[in-house]
Amino acid sequence: MATATAKKKKRTNKVKMTYCWGSLKTEGDATQKQLLGGKGANLAEMTSIGLPVPSGFTIPTTMCEAYYKEGSKMPAGLNDATIKAIKQLEKETGKKFGSKTDPLLVSVRSGAAVSMPGMMDTVLNLGLTDDAVQGMIELTGNERFGWDAYRRLINMFGDVVMGMEHESFEKEFEKVKSKHGVKLDTELSAKGLKEVCDRYKKVYRRKVGSDFPQDPIKQLTLSVEAVFRSWNTHRAKSYRQINDITGLRGTAVNVQTMVFGNMGTDCGTGVAFTRNPSTGEDKFFGEFLIDAQGEDVVAGIRTPKPVSEMKKWNNRIFNELLKVKKTLEKHYSDMQDIEFTIEKGKLWMLQTRTGKRTAAAAVKLAVDMVRSRMINKDEALLRIPAGDLVQLLLPSFTAKSKHKVKMLARGLPASPGAATGTLAFSADDAVKRAEAGENVLLVRKETSPEDIDGMHHAVGILTSTGGMTSHAAVVARGWGKCCVAGAAALHIDAAAKRVTIDGKKYTEKSVLSIDGGTGEVMLGAVERHEPKLSSDFDTIMKWADQRRRMNVRTNADSPTDAKRAREFGAEGIGLTRTEHMFFEGDRILAMRRMILAETKGKREEALARLMPYQRDDFIGIFTAMKGLPVTVRLLDPPLHEFLPHDHAGQKEVAATMGIKPSRVKHRVEQLHEFNPMLGHRGCRLAVTYPEILVMQVTAITEAVIACKRKRIDARPEIMIPLVGIEEELEQLRALAANTMMTIAKKERFKGKLNIPIGTMIEIPRAALVAEQIAEVADFFSFGTNDLTQLTYGFSRDDINSFLPHYLEDGILERDPFQTIDRDGVGRLVEMGCEGGRKTNPKLKIGICGEHGGDPSSVEFCHGVGLDYVSCSPFRVPTARLAAAQASIKENIK
Amino acid sequence: MATATAKKKKRTNKVKMTYCWGSLKTEGDATQKQLLGGKGANLAEMTSIGLPVPSGFTIPTTMCEAYYKEGSKMPAGLNDATIKAIKQLEKETGKKFGSKTDPLLVSVRSGAAVSMPGMMDTVLNLGLTDDAVQGMIELTGNERFGWDAYRRLINMFGDVVMGMEHESFEKEFEKVKSKHGVKLDTELSAKGLKEVCDRYKKVYRRKVGSDFPQDPIKQLTLSVEAVFRSWNTHRAKSYRQINDITGLRGTAVNVQTMVFGNMGTDCGTGVAFTRNPSTGEDKFFGEFLIDAQGEDVVAGIRTPKPVSEMKKWNNRIFNELLKVKKTLEKHYSDMQDIEFTIEKGKLWMLQTRTGKRTAAAAVKLAVDMVRSRMINKDEALLRIPAGDLVQLLLPSFTAKSKHKVKMLARGLPASPGAATGTLAFSADDAVKRAEAGENVLLVRKETSPEDIDGMHHAVGILTSTGGMTSHAAVVARGWGKCCVAGAAALHIDAAAKRVTIDGKKYTEKSVLSIDGGTGEVMLGAVERHEPKLSSDFDTIMKWADQRRRMNVRTNADSPTDAKRAREFGAEGIGLTRTEHMFFEGDRILAMRRMILAETKGKREEALARLMPYQRDDFIGIFTAMKGLPVTVRLLDPPLHEFLPHDHAGQKEVAATMGIKPSRVKHRVEQLHEFNPMLGHRGCRLAVTYPEILVMQVTAITEAVIACKRKRIDARPEIMIPLVGIEEELEQLRALAANTMMTIAKKERFKGKLNIPIGTMIEIPRAALVAEQIAEVADFFSFGTNDLTQLTYGFSRDDINSFLPHYLEDGILERDPFQTIDRDGVGRLVEMGCEGGRKTNPKLKIGICGEHGGDPSSVEFCHGVGLDYVSCSPFRVPTARLAAAQASIKENIK
Repeated sequence: MATATAKKKKRTNKVKMTYCWGSLKTEGDATQKQLLGGKGANLAEMTSIGLPVPSGFTIPTTMCEAYYKEGSKMPAGLNDATIKAIKQLEKETGKKFGSKTDPLLVSVRSGAAVSMPGMMDTVLNLGLTDDAVQGMIELTGNERFGWDAYRRLINMFGDVVMGMEHESFEKEFEKVKSKHGVKLDTELSAKGLKEVCDRYKKVYRRKVGSDFPQDPIKQLTLSVEAVFRSWNTHRAKSYRQINDITGLRGTAVNVQTMVFGNMGTDCGTGVAFTRNPSTGEDKFFGEFLIDAQGEDVVAGIRTPKPVSEMKKWNNRIFNELLKVKKTLEKHYSDMQDIEFTIEKGKLWMLQTRTGKRTAAAAVKLAVDMVRSRMINKDEALLRIPAGDLVQLLLPSFTAKSKHKVKMLARGLPASPGAATGTLAFSADDAVKRAEAGENVLLVRKETSPEDIDGMHHAVGILTSTGGMTSHAAVVARGWGKCCVAGAAALHIDAAAKRVTIDGKKYTEKSVLSIDGGTGEVMLGAVERHEPKLSSDFDTIMKWADQRRRMNVRTNADSPTDAKRAREFGAEGIGLTRTEHMFFEGDRILAMRRMILAETKGKREEALARLMPYQRDDFIGIFTAMKGLPVTVRLLDPPLHEFLPHDHAGQKEVAATMGIKPSRVKHRVEQLHEFNPMLGHRGCRLAVTYPEILVMQVTAITEAVIACKRKRIDARPEIMIPLVGIEEELEQLRALAANTMMTIAKKERFKGKLNIPIGTMIEIPRAALVAEQIAEVADFFSFGTNDLTQLTYGFSRDDINSFLPHYLEDGILERDPFQTIDRDGVGRLVEMGCEGGRKTNPKLKIGICGEHGGDPSSVEFCHGVGLDYVSCSPFRVPTARLAAAQASIKENIK
Repeated sequence: MATATAKKKKRTNKVKMTYCWGSLKTEGDATQKQLLGGKGANLAEMTSIGLPVPSGFTIPTTMCEAYYKEGSKMPAGLNDATIKAIKQLEKETGKKFGSKTDPLLVSVRSGAAVSMPGMMDTVLNLGLTDDAVQGMIELTGNERFGWDAYRRLINMFGDVVMGMEHESFEKEFEKVKSKHGVKLDTELSAKGLKEVCDRYKKVYRRKVGSDFPQDPIKQLTLSVEAVFRSWNTHRAKSYRQINDITGLRGTAVNVQTMVFGNMGTDCGTGVAFTRNPSTGEDKFFGEFLIDAQGEDVVAGIRTPKPVSEMKKWNNRIFNELLKVKKTLEKHYSDMQDIEFTIEKGKLWMLQTRTGKRTAAAAVKLAVDMVRSRMINKDEALLRIPAGDLVQLLLPSFTAKSKHKVKMLARGLPASPGAATGTLAFSADDAVKRAEAGENVLLVRKETSPEDIDGMHHAVGILTSTGGMTSHAAVVARGWGKCCVAGAAALHIDAAAKRVTIDGKKYTEKSVLSIDGGTGEVMLGAVERHEPKLSSDFDTIMKWADQRRRMNVRTNADSPTDAKRAREFGAEGIGLTRTEHMFFEGDRILAMRRMILAETKGKREEALARLMPYQRDDFIGIFTAMKGLPVTVRLLDPPLHEFLPHDHAGQKEVAATMGIKPSRVKHRVEQLHEFNPMLGHRGCRLAVTYPEILVMQVTAITEAVIACKRKRIDARPEIMIPLVGIEEELEQLRALAANTMMTIAKKERFKGKLNIPIGTMIEIPRAALVAEQIAEVADFFSFGTNDLTQLTYGFSRDDINSFLPHYLEDGILERDPFQTIDRDGVGRLVEMGCEGGRKTNPKLKIGICGEHGGDPSSVEFCHGVGLDYVSCSPFRVPTARLAAAQASIKENIK
């Protein structure tokens, strides 16, 4: 046993368990984010470059990882290492933990490699005990301050570390206030606050079963463990999942000497961005509160003042802050999000990190910084989250329409965009109603991490307190979701499900509109218009286009969509779904006649009626995309989708067709499938009803000939869906080629048709036998929606019963329908590319699943050597940028 | 153009277009079956070893291949080559094509590398013209014979080569017969037959639009093309598909000098097997007809005599034939199926080929031939079609039960087995009713290749004419399907859908039983008993077990099945489906209670009721399989399968449960899935309802403990189904292991449980990420049913709408659910094995899909290195033999 323990000690001793920063010694730097977390790494970095940072130390993320590896147990040796680090901190500060004369107080904060605002728990004023509070009072000469700090610690420690309910403390506080006849917290005397402390300790003992710890080391070690625990709470996991944060080891713990912004009116605290995070404008941008602790700003409890007003309060500090701002931007070459505290006229920096920004700001910042030579073009491109560009393409309200509606209130323009919806007063309610298809605005006094899900489901977020850096604002901006914060005119009664504005009540059924760019709250729906793109956007897109190797196409089924996508920079259509063309007006009648036909002859008759519609659709699309390729997918869905499944519908169809309802019903039953996803669709239809393919190819060929005769450069590519066997494509290709020849002859067309014929790779087998299929294909287009369904054996329509569990339990890190699964589906894509190019080196390869507009998936596509990605029109700029980023990253590697 | 033609000529000239055999020159041998077809190769071989074979030549299969490659056009140069070969034949025989004095007559027969009895068209007496018939009459001095041969040629040529209907000729023949006042064909005079010829030629001219060709070369070249065409008729393709014949180039064409068995009573024709093809007994076995042409025997038009009776007719010829039999068996080291003709007292051999045999015969022959040192054990094992062994395990009627039923008729014991069914009078009807789930006997006067499908679907075949070598008999024996042939007492009226036996009528609804081992036809259903296996069978199985590397397990869900499979040699259970255990009696109630429970607590309550049932089932199975592994698959199907979907059923369930019907309905709706195959099932159930897994693992663990306490060596393996993601298995494995520990503790069990935990590989992704999954798996079992569904994107329940098309059009060579698709599904299996063993070299790997009992798939499994295959109990001997054959073949390579 002794040997085992010795071994264990030896092993754990190797690991460095704390990293300190301070004037005497600093052990970390900004490059060590994975190990120290973003906060810890940057605190060390700021210290190194001479900024005023209260000293402290970081317990690295590896310790959190070890904590979970050992079944939620504190790693052996960590407590000893912490005590050692505290000793060093005492040396740095000259203070003593628990001292009656000059006590060392620290904050304990979480800090992962990726910023997760408001997600992790924090303990402030740690180190206060019955003894130390006396020391604190002696030191500051401020009795009220001492007891206030102590009662905050007991409350926070009980709440965050021991899992007590905030309310138990709140009640006692209210009792003391009413006993002393005061209303505001700040009105309570030192004596009153001391009484609060006494009551808090009793509550603590009652709920926890032991006394509030009088040993600061015990307070610290328990707090460190609480931070570790907070890493795996439901809300933290949910945040990571929604924000697609994966691959982290855990959170680091930062233990830092306390500085106080709440020691009086020469104290304050604030958060700021070195530039405007909403517009990107190069203007110092932030908020501060006098006589307050940092959490007060972030939590949105008090509404803070703009940082520009600091000048009036303390010009020296303001100028010092501006200097810090410049130093940081220069040092980091990026816009920073900082936290600071002023303690009795001295500025302390508590945090710096890369500032979150809107897409518009990201674009402007990137271009501005290239112009001022802070960064190069590649850096600029890498810095813009490609997925966020969608925001820039989102609609905003028209000024004209705004004038027509009633303005109810104005809040802070927390996150741009324009949203109209009915009101949801709880996150749960928002989720439920949004899932039922309703557009809801989430209306809350303030939001907290528990509301994440509801915020995600809402079309917009409206809060009555909190500022531009409140939880609601930061989270909404990250998502590009419209948010108006701190609209103080709103009086929200969440339990009664209503909000009162100017004495008027608005309920769940009321429709409001919010403008995230102006902060306006309006009654009723407001007309919106298409967004205008900045010249900076064009610049970024130009740079991206210069850098990317892959082409970007779009998925579009109509000339309108095609035209818009072309404006967004689409270099062709990667997927035109022809089935949509069968639903409009008379077409569905002809389609149904075809499906109900009992002979090939009758089917051909019905198809002949459909042909001209389809031909004219193609002429429209080919004209809109002239000079660019247009991939036309032949009929894909099972035929039963075109027939009504209910009795009334069938009766109606029968009446229109002049046949018996029983025949319609019979046909519907005949077409019924247990698993339509795996049924009679795609090229299987063309094998059994070749006349459908013949009609579609006829329409395409006639459209091309019509275009060419009008000197329109039509460039269709025929895509045969759902191929899993070489012979399917071989036979259908021959039939299509034959049809083209027949039509060309009939039309006496002498030119070259030049219509490539290819297939979607969406059946796993197609990827596995790509070598064979490529021999008879001019191109492959990966249909990763179906490929993901089949590779996982997941039906997209049915996964709701278990997918949420899977994401929550960490069985899946991401929804594989949003971001391509590289290990499984991705491997098939790789095999498909390799196999295909082996037998057909000229094979053109693209992707047309929804992954084509997801940046991570686009990067994957670049890596496996695809020629193009195709995505929905609004995603085209995202895909262009993501493709450029993939090229750049490849060169960095 | 001239150059192109020259080039083409040059290319085609390289190819040898005919291979002759005869006393002057023989160009082929028995090894050249792929090129010359089985018939042609063996005719050449027989000639070489000195047997009496009418000389002739073969147009090789490469010409048929070329014919189709050139779009159904006769290969350039083939007609010239044919003329040249005819010249050589004229030299051999001294006869002249079309001669008025000594005309050369030939037969034209198809012959592929694999025997396809009755599938390909044949023309006899070719070379007869208005001139040549005179020569024939002169030569034979038999006017009647000449005109009879000529009318046969015109009929056959019109029918087979020109596609005329047989009836057009038949009518004319009937008219002449009635005009001449005769009933039988043989009664018609030479004059009458001449008149028939004249009428036939008129019919020919009317239907074809030109005269019956008077140029023998034209007759020949048209016939050769007809043989080529016959290769791709629907019936030929269908035969190849059913018999799994793939990879052939086409058919060869054999042109052979005619010999006549119908020139008088010193003539005859027959077919025979060198040993009994039904039992394997070493006894010459066959049938012959006096004064008849060969087709008469095979077609079953006249009922022939046993070959043993030949002795009485012509002892010299009989002895000569016995000598030929011995020569052939010695030369080929195998049982032969021969055709012969006696022309005016001279024996001519027309064919020899390896004789088709029943499984029982194959086993006996193989063992006998090893004992007489004709072949070695490996050859013996390779010679038995592994799939046929199932026949030996099929039931037969009990003698006792037979005595109780009424014997209606007796036919020939054409193919062993015992079948009971209602009567179908057409192949179509048999197919339709069999597909609806009815057991039907196909009752026909005689069968023809058009009936293949119906024969395949029927449980047994009963004919009123035809012998042991008739179409029905040969085909049925090949399949191991019960067949009674030539039951002359039956008077079948197919149009009226009835059969009259002894004046009593039997309709579609009548139930008959037929005994293929005795030829009995009985009224009503007859009790059957399990087959008794011969000691030869045991010998073969013993040899196979010595040779195979793979283990063979069985799929069994009950102690009874398990026991039987063990008797068939199963070395464990590869798949126990636990869901079947939830349907019996009260269990379904508890199961439904579980599904309808609204809380985890209620679910656990219901599960607690199910646990004892499941535990006792396991005790039964573990006991039956003591000492052998039993792989238990945890619950797999979606929960809705356990609830009724109709209103009445739901109402009943609600009443039993004491809840509202609407709640049942609601739950059914909640559980409804668009694609249940891709839905909430398999391990996804265990992730969302872990308590189900806990209950099942509890039952397994308690069963093991109960067994071990009774000193029964229980060896379960827990299989978690439908895993596609490593984390699924990781989490569920931990839960299962934890449950085992808890139960062991609760039961105070101190021994080792030793229960491996593994997974099915049935999701494509599982095969792709096998490296990851294997890290947390003790074993893999390929579930190739689902793997095939997902790899192809085919739902087994829905493929009937297109799969028949796919097989017919040659898009698929085989049903991938019957024989594993090596290119696609097989590649995933390979990847799964490789990946799995990479990270877990000890990984045990098996297969438990239906492919586990298919010989070709078993060979594949051997090749990729699986440890075992698991199949249905009756397939176990097949798998054992197939596994041995795979080992042997591997060594040959």
